[in-house]
Amino acid sequence: MGLTVTEKIIADHLVEGEMTPGSPIALRIDQTLTQDATGTMAYLEFEAIGLDRVRTELSVSYVDHNLLQSDFRNADDHRFLQSIAARYGVHFSRPGNGICHQVHFERFAVPGKTLLGSDSHTPTAGGCGMLAMGAGGLDVAMAMAGQPFHLRMPEVVGVRLVGALRPWVSAKDVILELLRRLTVKGGVGKVMEYFGPGLSGLSATDRAAIANLGTELGATGTVFPSDEVTRAFLAAQDRERDWRPLAADPDADYAEVIEVDLSALEPMVACPSSPDNVVPVREVAGRPVAQVLVGSCANSSLRDIAVVARALEGRTVHEWVSLEVNPGSRQVLENADAEGHLRTLIHAGARIQQCGCLGCIGMGQAPPTGGVSLRTFTRNFPGRSGTKDDQVYLCSPETAVAAAIRGVITDPRELGAAPEIRLPARYIINDAGILPPPADGSGVEVLRGPNIRPLPEFDVLPEDLDLEVLLKVGDNITTDHIMPAGSRVLPLRSNVPAISRFVFESVDPSFAERAERAGGGIVVGGDNYGQGSSREHAALAPRYLGVRAKLAKGFARIHKANLVNFGIVPMTFADPADYDRVRQGDRLAIPGLRRALLAGAETVTVRLGGGGTFDVRLDLGERDRRILAEGSLLGWVRARLAAEAG
Amino acid sequence: MGLTVTEKIIADHLVEGEMTPGSPIALRIDQTLTQDATGTMAYLEFEAIGLDRVRTELSVSYVDHNLLQSDFRNADDHRFLQSIAARYGVHFSRPGNGICHQVHFERFAVPGKTLLGSDSHTPTAGGCGMLAMGAGGLDVAMAMAGQPFHLRMPEVVGVRLVGALRPWVSAKDVILELLRRLTVKGGVGKVMEYFGPGLSGLSATDRAAIANLGTELGATGTVFPSDEVTRAFLAAQDRERDWRPLAADPDADYAEVIEVDLSALEPMVACPSSPDNVVPVREVAGRPVAQVLVGSCANSSLRDIAVVARALEGRTVHEWVSLEVNPGSRQVLENADAEGHLRTLIHAGARIQQCGCLGCIGMGQAPPTGGVSLRTFTRNFPGRSGTKDDQVYLCSPETAVAAAIRGVITDPRELGAAPEIRLPARYIINDAGILPPPADGSGVEVLRGPNIRPLPEFDVLPEDLDLEVLLKVGDNITTDHIMPAGSRVLPLRSNVPAISRFVFESVDPSFAERAERAGGGIVVGGDNYGQGSSREHAALAPRYLGVRAKLAKGFARIHKANLVNFGIVPMTFADPADYDRVRQGDRLAIPGLRRALLAGAETVTVRLGGGGTFDVRLDLGERDRRILAEGSLLGWVRARLAAEAG
Repeated sequence: MGLTVTEKIIADHLVEGEMTPGSPIALRIDQTLTQDATGTMAYLEFEAIGLDRVRTELSVSYVDHNLLQSDFRNADDHRFLQSIAARYGVHFSRPGNGICHQVHFERFAVPGKTLLGSDSHTPTAGGCGMLAMGAGGLDVAMAMAGQPFHLRMPEVVGVRLVGALRPWVSAKDVILELLRRLTVKGGVGKVMEYFGPGLSGLSATDRAAIANLGTELGATGTVFPSDEVTRAFLAAQDRERDWRPLAADPDADYAEVIEVDLSALEPMVACPSSPDNVVPVREVAGRPVAQVLVGSCANSSLRDIAVVARALEGRTVHEWVSLEVNPGSRQVLENADAEGHLRTLIHAGARIQQCGCLGCIGMGQAPPTGGVSLRTFTRNFPGRSGTKDDQVYLCSPETAVAAAIRGVITDPRELGAAPEIRLPARYIINDAGILPPPADGSGVEVLRGPNIRPLPEFDVLPEDLDLEVLLKVGDNITTDHIMPAGSRVLPLRSNVPAISRFVFESVDPSFAERAERAGGGIVVGGDNYGQGSSREHAALAPRYLGVRAKLAKGFARIHKANLVNFGIVPMTFADPADYDRVRQGDRLAIPGLRRALLAGAETVTVRLGGGGTFDVRLDLGERDRRILAEGSLLGWVRARLAAEAG
Repeated sequence: MGLTVTEKIIADHLVEGEMTPGSPIALRIDQTLTQDATGTMAYLEFEAIGLDRVRTELSVSYVDHNLLQSDFRNADDHRFLQSIAARYGVHFSRPGNGICHQVHFERFAVPGKTLLGSDSHTPTAGGCGMLAMGAGGLDVAMAMAGQPFHLRMPEVVGVRLVGALRPWVSAKDVILELLRRLTVKGGVGKVMEYFGPGLSGLSATDRAAIANLGTELGATGTVFPSDEVTRAFLAAQDRERDWRPLAADPDADYAEVIEVDLSALEPMVACPSSPDNVVPVREVAGRPVAQVLVGSCANSSLRDIAVVARALEGRTVHEWVSLEVNPGSRQVLENADAEGHLRTLIHAGARIQQCGCLGCIGMGQAPPTGGVSLRTFTRNFPGRSGTKDDQVYLCSPETAVAAAIRGVITDPRELGAAPEIRLPARYIINDAGILPPPADGSGVEVLRGPNIRPLPEFDVLPEDLDLEVLLKVGDNITTDHIMPAGSRVLPLRSNVPAISRFVFESVDPSFAERAERAGGGIVVGGDNYGQGSSREHAALAPRYLGVRAKLAKGFARIHKANLVNFGIVPMTFADPADYDRVRQGDRLAIPGLRRALLAGAETVTVRLGGGGTFDVRLDLGERDRRILAEGSLLGWVRARLAAEAG
């Protein structure tokens, strides 16, 4: 039986496991990318692994998320990222050089390769036939260290495109239509793979726009074939050498096939406040608009900027609309300027912003109270814009510019003849904003501002544990309880000593102080402990405070994995009734825990300080047990690498 | 005896007083400008006056200070300013249209006219022969209401320019040289008036750059003559009709004449952390630079952008320098693009930011810890950049770009042949970003977000006062004690009810609550009460809480004026020893206070609630007494306008 493109790439990179949907597999990672919001911790983690240089074919560190530089911490992060990239063999894309996904697509994406990025929209690169996936910072650090990426084999869903897009309808409308049909949960556990006769009418950057928003379907990735369109794009980027053809076999077996007739699509819009709340634009036409933002990794390619500019020729932005254009990259900006689009935009009254994510991740560009904001962006979750009770709509550049001209939501087909956009046969290419690493970075000094602290050292698990119960909590404790986010705490994410002061702040503000005074301890919880966000700091920071084990009635899946990664032993009550026997302040002793872990024991006995014992379960796989014994995933990988080298 | 240009303009606008240096005078104001940081309160104050339309020849509301839009308040301010401008006959310059002083100079400055602006760098317009001055928001509101501006007649200091600037030396170096000679106090009570044969080599925007930084000398204003250079500039702006010649009489009598030989100047730089800490660039050459910022009202004209671009032709920004260009206006941006400068800047690696103040007022662009930042800006006060312990240097665009190329502070004369910059005979002009008001704005709805509240109503002074002593404080209380600033409090400046909760917060957090419970009262202070910043909220907010009088051993000058403006009667102890007889919580009665004020009484008797009396002094002028009797300057002006109309 034939293979899909996705299966071909996976087969080509399979290190462990069987290619049966749902089975655990491990893949070799060719390329990695990071951005500044997640990158600082990822590089601290890589540094802690102890290698001298990354082991990928290519790793790139981008600065695109926080470009406002409201205080020293942001600028310090940029210098840290620049210096640590040079130190460890990573390319560095400078602040202002553009959004990671746009720049990576232009300069680095290669058909048939794997890319792991510490940003959820990493699948954008699937537009040119990569298997590109988002992951946490530690996963990316591990990939940089040459470790495979562990995931479950996805189902491959085929999306068959037929027909051709009509004027004023574009790639964004294709993926909005899929979001309308499938919802934000429709892609979970799946890779969306596009094929069919309709493909030929979609440029490489159109495909990237579709792949980008595949993330909002919940998909693991989105993959397009690599064809003559891909070849032409790579040639226009002076990278034809990176091209290889890649298509599904004629008898490839998709888990499911969805057909989209491009000719039947009309302009679509995702209404507040979910990317799948999609209706045709005409159904909401006439609503007054306060702000129109063009940009983000979803829609900031040259074509997207050009279509907005061309539609504005001879027109002026409506007096009550702030039209803002955030070019996706320096290359987009320079090419748009060369083709006269920048002049048109400036003349019509658009605000030209620097290249970067900006309002898409709530760094500025907050809309006014009660004002409708039309955005070509990726997400319209409530409040993400920075304005509570915001009214954010997601749409194509065509629909965006129509509203900017008319002052109300407008079907762009009302604007008359659609501009014809020709993409350059050869882009103006200028990699001055991308600094390749030196051949030998060992002499590079890593610049650390006062807010950037090395990752703490984590010692191996002692043979026996004897711990104070630092805190006892109930059911459904979230990672927000354990490690709050928000503007006070987020800037501390590269400063573990500082961020650890906030652990359990909303539950018990004295927790951090008590944990330190006790020299560490154990936390006891109820059911569904650690639900919510996947943030790794909810394990990393408690571990820094000395927490060595957590004992609960049950754990949420991702938090449990994070506990293992940072060397906190997750244990469950064999008899949930024993939960009531433990009180805050008690001492719990588990003699021989390390040996039991390594021996594969499923149960160990806990001695209560006040007398008596009870059993706890260790529901852990082989790899988990070895990681815990080494004290952390970092320690485990370090030990393996040392063994390899030795 | 002949007159200086300054004296001619003053004579032409004199409403009250004698033109003797130091004497109180009042001037008719032709034009006003506001920016968003001060404008919201200025328009609330204008609204409270009760007129239907401004009475100036021209009033313009600019949005340039806070363009980051971190939350709804900023965007709401923009909509409030746009709508209230249309309501009351004010031109509105949209966010992104540029910095108030640059745009005003391009499109509105007129030789021989007066301009009052609620921004300290308003004197920039003096570059084309205006008398342009900065003032508080209420002063500007009064000017919009057709009221004269009260000040003391300045001394006129002549600055005689001879010779011509050498290559790589520019206008910024002229004013840096003056700051070196005169210090930041050298211009207090003075207008700096330029003349001499060296003038002809300075373009109108060069003159504006010099006038701009005259503010850092402490000068009331800076005035240039209006000559053929001025005429050519206005013609290039399609405004030759606004030109009139204006020069000092040959026998004009300057209080003092300073001579500057332009040929002898070399590139200068103001070192951290004061604009007058000036040395030749060569003395500090070689220091590594992290950030170079080009822009601000000091240096963001087309010439300034062009010189940076031309110097970058065929060169690349140093890998450790972030070069950022903040164009002064949409016109500058569009013309720079038409001449190819934007392409050059983008290609060389500059970050192009939106048009506005940005880092110059600490809205983003904070430098890294310990990193040198070279800026073409106006001020390098410690921490103003957003980074504590910053190292900010002020310099010309030439010196800025030299550092951006080399990565260290560099005398630009090391760059080789200087580029020759030709300014356009006719700028590309496009006023799409400036919205003129409708002929009749009475039907315009003013859009107020939840953070924008109308100015409270202030009733007239009662005949008798009987007040509780809400607070008794010691000597040297500052306006920071009375009304704190900072990021928590500043966004509330157009919301008097909200900002009033912070009155005396650092002295007594329960003050606001106690004042309200008591239904108002009196504050008792020691000597030098109200020293420090001139902020009007230190009077406005206590008055909102019901404070009707302040009794102290002595008042700082500006705060006392603010107390009068907002209807709080400032009284001093006739015998300072009586300070010890008053305790917090006492009641003080002053029967017949209003009548005594209007009768010109210099002393009134206070009855202590617990028994006994003492005398207090009313050290107030005639106008002050009438304002206090009406309850506020706003009330007084309103009454006068009603009398006029009646």
